[in-house]
Amino acid sequence: MREPFEFTILKEDSETWARVGVIRTPHGEIPTPVFAPVGTQATVKALTPKELEELGVTLILANTYHIYLRPGPEVIAELGGLHRFMAWPRPIMTDSGGFQIYSLESLRRFTEEGVVFRSHLDGSMHLLTPEKAIEIQELLGADFITCLDECPPPLERDYVKEATERTHRWAERCLKAHRRTDQALFGIIQGGIFPDLRRESARFIASLGFDGFSIGGLSVGEPKEKTWEMLEVVIPVLPRDKPRHLLGVGAPEDFFEGISRGIDIFDCVLPTRMGRTGTLFTWQGKINITNAQYARDPNPVDPTCGCYTCRNFSRAYLRHLFKAEEILAPILATIHNVYFMVNLVKRIRQSILEGNFALLREEFMASYQRRL
Amino acid sequence: MREPFEFTILKEDSETWARVGVIRTPHGEIPTPVFAPVGTQATVKALTPKELEELGVTLILANTYHIYLRPGPEVIAELGGLHRFMAWPRPIMTDSGGFQIYSLESLRRFTEEGVVFRSHLDGSMHLLTPEKAIEIQELLGADFITCLDECPPPLERDYVKEATERTHRWAERCLKAHRRTDQALFGIIQGGIFPDLRRESARFIASLGFDGFSIGGLSVGEPKEKTWEMLEVVIPVLPRDKPRHLLGVGAPEDFFEGISRGIDIFDCVLPTRMGRTGTLFTWQGKINITNAQYARDPNPVDPTCGCYTCRNFSRAYLRHLFKAEEILAPILATIHNVYFMVNLVKRIRQSILEGNFALLREEFMASYQRRL
Repeated sequence: MREPFEFTILKEDSETWARVGVIRTPHGEIPTPVFAPVGTQATVKALTPKELEELGVTLILANTYHIYLRPGPEVIAELGGLHRFMAWPRPIMTDSGGFQIYSLESLRRFTEEGVVFRSHLDGSMHLLTPEKAIEIQELLGADFITCLDECPPPLERDYVKEATERTHRWAERCLKAHRRTDQALFGIIQGGIFPDLRRESARFIASLGFDGFSIGGLSVGEPKEKTWEMLEVVIPVLPRDKPRHLLGVGAPEDFFEGISRGIDIFDCVLPTRMGRTGTLFTWQGKINITNAQYARDPNPVDPTCGCYTCRNFSRAYLRHLFKAEEILAPILATIHNVYFMVNLVKRIRQSILEGNFALLREEFMASYQRRL
Repeated sequence: MREPFEFTILKEDSETWARVGVIRTPHGEIPTPVFAPVGTQATVKALTPKELEELGVTLILANTYHIYLRPGPEVIAELGGLHRFMAWPRPIMTDSGGFQIYSLESLRRFTEEGVVFRSHLDGSMHLLTPEKAIEIQELLGADFITCLDECPPPLERDYVKEATERTHRWAERCLKAHRRTDQALFGIIQGGIFPDLRRESARFIASLGFDGFSIGGLSVGEPKEKTWEMLEVVIPVLPRDKPRHLLGVGAPEDFFEGISRGIDIFDCVLPTRMGRTGTLFTWQGKINITNAQYARDPNPVDPTCGCYTCRNFSRAYLRHLFKAEEILAPILATIHNVYFMVNLVKRIRQSILEGNFALLREEFMASYQRRL
């Protein structure tokens, strides 16, 4: 990566493609592998930035699409940029908005110039071009920004080929448009579930000289095995010395699969979204805390967990909060889930450093699968 | 107050009935005058207990009615009592449930035995007697508990007289029923807005030997001047050496009025409830943060405030969070409002100690009334 960024690989696993590193950014260091919670609308839902710091979060991902529509990038730039606006002093990554717009389905149309879409908030029409995606992300000022891409349905080969090739042309336009030197620009690799298209996409995007690589369009409906198969095609093509990000993937079991195939960065709404509905991650699998069986349960959510929620509150109290629809319910659940994800990845990191990655993986999967 | 409680008066104001003290309880000391946020369902809405501690909160009030219906006092007792259940290590006061049941209107009927009411949650029928109110509060285990009372419409003399006399008979039954020695029992004074009934109620309740006194049935619709007039009738009748609590009153201007008439404890949902709708208290009066004028305002809610919200976030960010309906909106607003109330009362306390109470009052009212 170019100055002021630096990616240092501290250790590579002897049996897998897993590696441990540190990314230096203008807002501090990120030990990798890392899990980034998602702050869709310039806030990680239900958490204060102080709580995020206490949870050991070192990177968050914010959604350009949502922030572009509200409050708007000019407002945020005027107020000192995204870090200042949301009072998050550590690194931020922004996506390009492509995936959110793709998800609007009937409300958008992709052309060579860019994508025309209708706002889900007020129905207004917008044109997002690769140049505009970069301009918006420069106004927001995240540490890592990403190219505009088209994320196609992974199974339709002709569509995937067309979208992937357009994503390549857009990647060149994004590189050309990018001005700020205090932001690292990530290229996005597409190609659906077709090994030849994935390989070609990885080769092309790698050839352009990006600071890092986001692998997109996976885990959007196709079987998980396909995701891992695609990583095995893509990763060997990418330069060793640049960080690799798997877009939108981050269930506990995915960390082991992704990291063993060379992924450095994960982002996912899973811990925050599931927390809000009372689904909590434990070393023994997921539990739904609203179930009647927890009504008088004095134990913490996960007895082995060191988070604020587990150190202070019983399952019975959490269930009460969800039943009473109290705001503290999603707060405590999100604290636990984010801590769980961040610390699971930290433990994986430590196990790679100590040469115990395979052992930890075996232990975790044996324990977790009991309820998976 | 009896052991293990102790109420020490440190200073009395020379010009008003204001006084500064400390109440020692089994869960720590409470400097008085004090403002207690309300934790209706065993949680102060939108705040973690950790945040409450950091805000300098030393006492909270929980609503017996709500907790009795859900999750139930037996569940809480089984889980170690209310302090343990909600992980709040400092003092708690519980009300008797009388006021909440009175507010159910058509769903309740008061008789000599007690009050029969229909749950607002599932329509089930319940009988709450004075003895049962004490039993429930002993199961919950708060530091301060209160007698069951009937809070009548303040203007209907015949009704008020009947309800006040019944409240007196219930007070005797509550005293008799109370067993736990680690809880202080507060008597409730009623009497509507009739000076003779108020005086009689204060005399009678004071004669029974309670550990403290709650003044109920005020600020429930009648003009605020009547509240202060009633305090002037009641306070001289109460023993000097026991704490006095004004039930459910706690707007900023009320603190000055109440404290100058000898009130030691306030509780009110105002800062939490208003926070959730975007109304924020400042030294210059209330503001509604959702107003368009704050869309690009880089200033904190109150530039003179030292709370976490004001130290880190702009009005523009808070407005964005409310517009985007983010959970962080009520969290940050509640942090600010509770800090504002707690610290205003702390400043009043300090001013009494320093002999500047009148000056602070004048300063505050001149500043606050500009927008009141």
